[in-house]
Amino acid sequence: MKSNKRIYLDSASTTYVSGEALQAMMPYFTSEFGNPASLHLYGRDAEKALAKAREQVAKSINADPSEIYFTSGATESNNWMIRGALKNATVKRVLVSSIEHPSIIELTKQLAEDGYKIEYIKVDSEGVILVSDLIAKLAKPAALVSVMTANNEVGTIQFLHTIAKICEERGVMFHTDASQAIGSVYIDVKEMKVDALSMSSHKIYGPKGIGALYLKKGLKLDKLVYGGGQERGMRSGTQNVPAIIGFGVAVELALRDATVNNTRIKQLRDYLIREIEGKIDNVKLNGHRVQRLPNNVNFSFKGIEGESLLMLLDMEGIAVSTGSACSSGSLEKSYVLSAMGVADELAQGSLRMTLSRNTTKQDIDSFISVLVKTVKKLRQMSALR
Amino acid sequence: MKSNKRIYLDSASTTYVSGEALQAMMPYFTSEFGNPASLHLYGRDAEKALAKAREQVAKSINADPSEIYFTSGATESNNWMIRGALKNATVKRVLVSSIEHPSIIELTKQLAEDGYKIEYIKVDSEGVILVSDLIAKLAKPAALVSVMTANNEVGTIQFLHTIAKICEERGVMFHTDASQAIGSVYIDVKEMKVDALSMSSHKIYGPKGIGALYLKKGLKLDKLVYGGGQERGMRSGTQNVPAIIGFGVAVELALRDATVNNTRIKQLRDYLIREIEGKIDNVKLNGHRVQRLPNNVNFSFKGIEGESLLMLLDMEGIAVSTGSACSSGSLEKSYVLSAMGVADELAQGSLRMTLSRNTTKQDIDSFISVLVKTVKKLRQMSALR
Repeated sequence: MKSNKRIYLDSASTTYVSGEALQAMMPYFTSEFGNPASLHLYGRDAEKALAKAREQVAKSINADPSEIYFTSGATESNNWMIRGALKNATVKRVLVSSIEHPSIIELTKQLAEDGYKIEYIKVDSEGVILVSDLIAKLAKPAALVSVMTANNEVGTIQFLHTIAKICEERGVMFHTDASQAIGSVYIDVKEMKVDALSMSSHKIYGPKGIGALYLKKGLKLDKLVYGGGQERGMRSGTQNVPAIIGFGVAVELALRDATVNNTRIKQLRDYLIREIEGKIDNVKLNGHRVQRLPNNVNFSFKGIEGESLLMLLDMEGIAVSTGSACSSGSLEKSYVLSAMGVADELAQGSLRMTLSRNTTKQDIDSFISVLVKTVKKLRQMSALR
Repeated sequence: MKSNKRIYLDSASTTYVSGEALQAMMPYFTSEFGNPASLHLYGRDAEKALAKAREQVAKSINADPSEIYFTSGATESNNWMIRGALKNATVKRVLVSSIEHPSIIELTKQLAEDGYKIEYIKVDSEGVILVSDLIAKLAKPAALVSVMTANNEVGTIQFLHTIAKICEERGVMFHTDASQAIGSVYIDVKEMKVDALSMSSHKIYGPKGIGALYLKKGLKLDKLVYGGGQERGMRSGTQNVPAIIGFGVAVELALRDATVNNTRIKQLRDYLIREIEGKIDNVKLNGHRVQRLPNNVNFSFKGIEGESLLMLLDMEGIAVSTGSACSSGSLEKSYVLSAMGVADELAQGSLRMTLSRNTTKQDIDSFISVLVKTVKKLRQMSALR
């Protein structure tokens, strides 16, 4: 590794666990290790801790604790929601945006094979849902609409109010995957009329392996996992107590520090965008310039393979991503950028840089100087070929 | 709380995380926090750690690492296996034992409603599968047989070799839920011809929220969770790296220390059984006296409600269970004891005591003296009514 300091610009993939969250978790691995389903003191203590975390999670989106179900993560929440809503629905039709996370896109592909009717709502060139297309598709009945709060690749934030209102007026259930949005986007499920919402812990400095599904009181959902009847009968399996505690603390801190963190990170984000646009030519910012996650920067570099750029940056100790981490193992071009109409040539040269709470201006400056050199080098190489 | 020391006799519900497992996990919360799907150094480091844990888990049952899929726990593994095997099977019929864990029993109830043919294999009065019933039921084709390695309530260990052989001869897939058995029962999936096996971490001094499914190479299984393609495309969702690391260490230690631990715990178990039978009359040991998990003791006390006994013991700082922890919230009598033909009156007065690695003879002696007094008191009260 050449640079002295490793620079992590991949927080949308995952974050470290904050000291506060980890400290809160620790007793639940050792002295307070009870199973919340147990009737004795060890069990009751664990159940009490769960109740507190459930309140923390609920409060962050203005839900009731009884509307929160803990899952193994947002991928499970998304799978559960879509499958569960369709199972006993009279209308076997679901609308999802064309830029949803793979946990929704891949599932809907399978559901289509299984005979369900799946339709993909179009987005504009900046990744914003085409409301006209949603309205047109809702002329026919649907069981569910699912549109993510903010996109994991390009950071575009949807106009949730509008989408939720359109669904509500038509009596269609509305679900949003808020994995990337908690702490960055203001969400009030009651005010916004959101029926269901998926959350993740490991994108907000909480532990991996835990997430939640918010489901509005009174709504019916088939189960994905059957068994001992945990989570009020809706999601069986011994609860992951330490992770739930950590998730609760992480959510609380994300909300508490949102204004300070987001203001600072947003400034750094815009500085990074300006620097790239100022110092490298033939670049294209992907996603919406304003309606965008505070920590997300996504650029296409003309004539360059994103993977090659990622590899060379990695050799300099810099961690970035092409597309989402989940699909970064593949060399296919991003389906998100394709849906936004980004030309193939540009879509293959895309790079996602997502800032953390502890990213500094110095990190950004070091990164830019390496990026400028690396892009130049790769372009020279491709010019020679 | 009256006693000076709390005594935990509920290890079959859950265990604390061992120091070794927790220590191994720690870096993966903080410095080594990468997403294994990421291509950069942080991601590759996480992926390397996963590979090591996968080897540890595989080795414990003599599987190949490529046959191990990490899940959120044994409940998910069981749900995935049964659903996944049935989805595309030509024969929509499955046989499970009548004393399976709720994660299988509750799922099969739903599957029966969905039109699948479910049959429950009978057990004898000690909880051992009736091989004659299995053979009779296998006269008609089935997609899958699922029989747990050892029962969570009464501790009876099945003759896995025999069951697996019967299934193999008939070309029927055989799955076993080994959640309670790892470290206590010798398992070699290759030698025993087991096709699939569910594992849990939090019963063997590993963290909660993680488990695995072993699936023999070449066997087909539909997915339960779709998405980013983790676990070689079979179980999506960002892997719970720290928990997987802890699970790997816990499995390795469970196997390494099996002989020493099990010999000691088995002696304590038999001492506890002798003491109860010697000091309290009208008791019945549930489960097999010999073919039994080293740490499991389960008794019915005539004329006593198990729940009342549990509550009074809890007030003395002693943690035990009635039936399985998962269903201990309900006052229904144990379906496991019912299937074994235990009379209702006795089934309602059952108590499960499961020893840990650090249970001492002194703990057992203290426990017995409290138990003797408490049973006497409850019987006097019920005699007065």
